Amino acid sequence: MNTKLKYNVIALSSNTSDEMNTQLLHNEVNSKTKPIGSLGILEQTAIQIGRIQKTTNPQLKNPHILTFAADHGIAKNASVSPYPQEVTYQMVLNFLNGGAAINVFSNQHNITLKVIDAGVNFDFSSLPLSQVNLKDNTHFLNRKIRMGTRDYSQEKAMTETEMNEALSVGGKIIDEIHAEGSNVVGFGEMGIGNTSSASIFLSILGNIPLENCVGAGAGHNNKGIQNKIKILQTAINKHNIKYNVEQNITNANELMATELMATFGGYEICMMAGAMLRAAELQMILLVDGFITSAAMLWASQIAPNILDYAIFSHLSDEQAHKLMLDKMNATHLINLKMRLGEGTGVAVTYPIINSAVNFLNQMATFNSAGVSSI
Amino acid sequence: MNTKLKYNVIALSSNTSDEMNTQLLHNEVNSKTKPIGSLGILEQTAIQIGRIQKTTNPQLKNPHILTFAADHGIAKNASVSPYPQEVTYQMVLNFLNGGAAINVFSNQHNITLKVIDAGVNFDFSSLPLSQVNLKDNTHFLNRKIRMGTRDYSQEKAMTETEMNEALSVGGKIIDEIHAEGSNVVGFGEMGIGNTSSASIFLSILGNIPLENCVGAGAGHNNKGIQNKIKILQTAINKHNIKYNVEQNITNANELMATELMATFGGYEICMMAGAMLRAAELQMILLVDGFITSAAMLWASQIAPNILDYAIFSHLSDEQAHKLMLDKMNATHLINLKMRLGEGTGVAVTYPIINSAVNFLNQMATFNSAGVSSI
Repeated sequence: MNTKLKYNVIALSSNTSDEMNTQLLHNEVNSKTKPIGSLGILEQTAIQIGRIQKTTNPQLKNPHILTFAADHGIAKNASVSPYPQEVTYQMVLNFLNGGAAINVFSNQHNITLKVIDAGVNFDFSSLPLSQVNLKDNTHFLNRKIRMGTRDYSQEKAMTETEMNEALSVGGKIIDEIHAEGSNVVGFGEMGIGNTSSASIFLSILGNIPLENCVGAGAGHNNKGIQNKIKILQTAINKHNIKYNVEQNITNANELMATELMATFGGYEICMMAGAMLRAAELQMILLVDGFITSAAMLWASQIAPNILDYAIFSHLSDEQAHKLMLDKMNATHLINLKMRLGEGTGVAVTYPIINSAVNFLNQMATFNSAGVSSI
Repeated sequence: MNTKLKYNVIALSSNTSDEMNTQLLHNEVNSKTKPIGSLGILEQTAIQIGRIQKTTNPQLKNPHILTFAADHGIAKNASVSPYPQEVTYQMVLNFLNGGAAINVFSNQHNITLKVIDAGVNFDFSSLPLSQVNLKDNTHFLNRKIRMGTRDYSQEKAMTETEMNEALSVGGKIIDEIHAEGSNVVGFGEMGIGNTSSASIFLSILGNIPLENCVGAGAGHNNKGIQNKIKILQTAINKHNIKYNVEQNITNANELMATELMATFGGYEICMMAGAMLRAAELQMILLVDGFITSAAMLWASQIAPNILDYAIFSHLSDEQAHKLMLDKMNATHLINLKMRLGEGTGVAVTYPIINSAVNFLNQMATFNSAGVSSI
């Protein structure tokens, strides 16, 4: 790998005015008519958003969810998912027709949904228009890199060129929505087989035994999970990627991460990671969904660790290893409804809570203004 | 106590059509384009609401939050709360002026807020109108029973007549909003000192040592908590209420509960419990807030155990004994943001999630309708 990725993600605390603004935010939160700390994680979220936007009056503008879809060569192997590969394109059509969970929840909260074909094994341009009935707040972006990745039980999933292309295209999608005034973006995905990539990412980047990183995915039983572990472990052994950050190389993390993405990644995961990195460069608020989206964030944090300053982890997925993944990033999730659907649904369902954090900061009276006795 | 309370709360499962409808609801949920069970607690919530409304297409109509406020004689004792008693009336004024957290979150979700003076130690009728600036979705109901309860470290908090009056008035408030087409109602409270009542309710009804039932309330430190336990234990010993359900009396639970309410209750807790019982009779959806609201529900469940079929527990409060209280009712909370503010804020913040449960059931496509392969 010769790839050198250049992302300039600024740590919040490296901003010279951050310390003062953080103090102002704490003062503002504590001046509100409520016992100190009694809004819990809403308070932490409000402060994080205020720090990102460098203000005590943050605003969420033109919220988007980007749902990246792609197929995985490994999924031709029936053991990695109980669902056949064609479910990926069928679900993309379902997104475009407004019938999926992500449509329902995005509509509920007036979030613009962009569905991105990053590499689905289906030619959407061949569709008769009658089969698609796009709603106003739903958009389809054809950014296909290839008709699915290669099967990493046999060869690397993608070429270095494809990886760089996916990262770059992800960034451009962000540039577009940022230009339209969006300052908050959620990430979701669809791709039969993509929990496998996420599990491998966690195992290798987190240095955690694979069996602790593999869960039920879209619905494996215990025997299915054991098969999945076996197939993935064989693939890991075959490619023999070394976790070489302890070697004395300046960009060891990055070399490792790019090798990992090209070998075991998916186009949706890669394009999403590129989008995340660009969104953090632009100091947008990044809303992370479940296990696969978190894997993209974990990967992106190898390239630019400061990205985590901009990330809000919407929910804890019921996919068992998600907790390990969040721990690896020292991340705190907002809610836990035992959801494990992907698509960005965790982000969409949690969005009003993030809005509540901003709203209380902007709208509540203070002890002084309301004439309430404080302690 | 001679009080005999008559509430006819029908168990969901005693409805003859419930079994069939429950099966239809499960089928409908499982037909949606998502892995089975992948919407987690949202699925359980959708099924509960569908069972309450006896339909596979439930609707949330004209949502209300009722925030009951009252003062507590015990709060004149500075050790039960770090805040002075006048904060109760000051916060009621804050509600009426739209400056509190409950205003912000109710406005965000178009929930009608009714603030009820159940027994605040302040004469609101003396207010110059210029001091109140009611928003459209906020209403004030003067249902004052008395200027605060008596101090139960000395005597019973309320008379039997007052208790019955508060229960009855609570029911009438529900009759009014039900007549206006509301089928979903959340409950909240304000009353300096009311975590003390809630802790005593949990200790006596749950047969749990008092020290496990007392927490920080509005912001005690550890020494404050120890003082609070001492004062409350002395009061419990003084009144010597026996948990007599094991005696062979038909309505032992009810006798115990009414004795408990009159001795240690608050007007806001009592009126809320009356409202809850009436709302369950009318088969409305009941949204429970945090520790104190849950204490009212725990109490109401002594009078009519089937009330729990209609209750959705919005959040787990950061008040430490709330978990024990929920366990006592076999209740599952929806979210946990470490909030401990009361007012109904847990309900309001969670409301869009409850709406999401109803929305996915009504709006998602099925595997069949969307042409997606199922397993």
